Amino acid sequence: MSLATTNSIKVLAFDVFGTVVDWHGSIVREVDRLNLGINGNDFALAWRMGYKPAMQRVMTGELGWTLLDDLHRLILDEILVQFGVTHLTEQQKCHLNKIWHRLGAWPDSVEGLTRLKSRYMISTLSNGNLGLLANMAKHAGLPWDCILSAEVFKKYKPDPATYLGVAKVFDVTPDQVMLVAAHHDDLTAARTCGLNTAYIERPFEYGSMRIKDVSPNPENTLHAKSIVDLASLLEC
Amino acid sequence: MSLATTNSIKVLAFDVFGTVVDWHGSIVREVDRLNLGINGNDFALAWRMGYKPAMQRVMTGELGWTLLDDLHRLILDEILVQFGVTHLTEQQKCHLNKIWHRLGAWPDSVEGLTRLKSRYMISTLSNGNLGLLANMAKHAGLPWDCILSAEVFKKYKPDPATYLGVAKVFDVTPDQVMLVAAHHDDLTAARTCGLNTAYIERPFEYGSMRIKDVSPNPENTLHAKSIVDLASLLEC
Repeated sequence: MSLATTNSIKVLAFDVFGTVVDWHGSIVREVDRLNLGINGNDFALAWRMGYKPAMQRVMTGELGWTLLDDLHRLILDEILVQFGVTHLTEQQKCHLNKIWHRLGAWPDSVEGLTRLKSRYMISTLSNGNLGLLANMAKHAGLPWDCILSAEVFKKYKPDPATYLGVAKVFDVTPDQVMLVAAHHDDLTAARTCGLNTAYIERPFEYGSMRIKDVSPNPENTLHAKSIVDLASLLEC
Repeated sequence: MSLATTNSIKVLAFDVFGTVVDWHGSIVREVDRLNLGINGNDFALAWRMGYKPAMQRVMTGELGWTLLDDLHRLILDEILVQFGVTHLTEQQKCHLNKIWHRLGAWPDSVEGLTRLKSRYMISTLSNGNLGLLANMAKHAGLPWDCILSAEVFKKYKPDPATYLGVAKVFDVTPDQVMLVAAHHDDLTAARTCGLNTAYIERPFEYGSMRIKDVSPNPENTLHAKSIVDLASLLEC
């Protein structure tokens, strides 16, 4: 990346689930602790696998605007039946559903974000709702300058309104924003809107039994092994 | 305030202009430095006095949804004429308009917020737009957990949608939220929605030549001399 590009970037917008926090490991650990007699790894993957179809129901208009907390709950109710967990009280289900508010950061996230924050405006750009993201930040010590969410734009990523919305909020041009994510589809959608993009390798996003391909896509502006590595690439 | 009330509060939502930052002093200092040949005190007061009528134009529907940055610019263009300032370039006017992004905190704000953050979710609830509030937080070192704005709810305070919106975002009841403000009208509107309220004394909000009456209103849950004082009252 040229120095000119680095200097023109003002805002780093981060995808969160998988990129900044380890949803898989966090859910496995908490579910295993609950002793529900189910496999935490399978349960975490099933829950996350319900995410895209649920999003799709909102994006096609089958569901009206629905917060991610409520989509997580719809999926949870289905998978609890699938996994044969029938004894949880409503309060226990509510608490379990908020596991997404209590996800732990990847080991490099806090250090990397803190370094990047010294030079850039660092914001979330996540499909998670505002309350979820704020609780998560407090729980995991994520030092965001701003929490932006699909909830603000009433559109879910990869809708262009989300990527362009970040530029609009900060009154900058799309190429002054860099989306940081561990998912090529998210980055591709952002690039189509004119944003710069940085890929973060998260080979263990789905756990150590299902290693993710983290090959670079040369169309990204940057490719980093971690958020700390990104901070070094951006000279923070 | 009873211990039970203190314990049930989860979220402190802060009014910002005048409560957390000193808009008057900050504008006077910057305008005086610019050597425009105008009285900084009068200019700051005139700009702020344009605020409520501008809000009103949005609330009555005369203007569609308009960000505070744009309302500030409308007012600025008018008062520049009034004060006979005709030589500024468009770029200089844009920069001057963003003075609201560069307001300084009252001396107690950062310490008070940092203490309150250890126990509560601390968020803005301001009519300032998200970008303005995020830039201000970065500039003044305000350690918000979350930045909420009229921009999120597409309604300006004192619309109930803003106060109730905070409770909704954090999935708590209205009485688990406390609005913190230096303005009784804001607090009264919040109380009508069921929020707890804390008044902060800011006698110099309009400068030292126009001391503000900071008498308590016994209907507020708390009355504090500063945000540090509020932290002490809330045992942080």
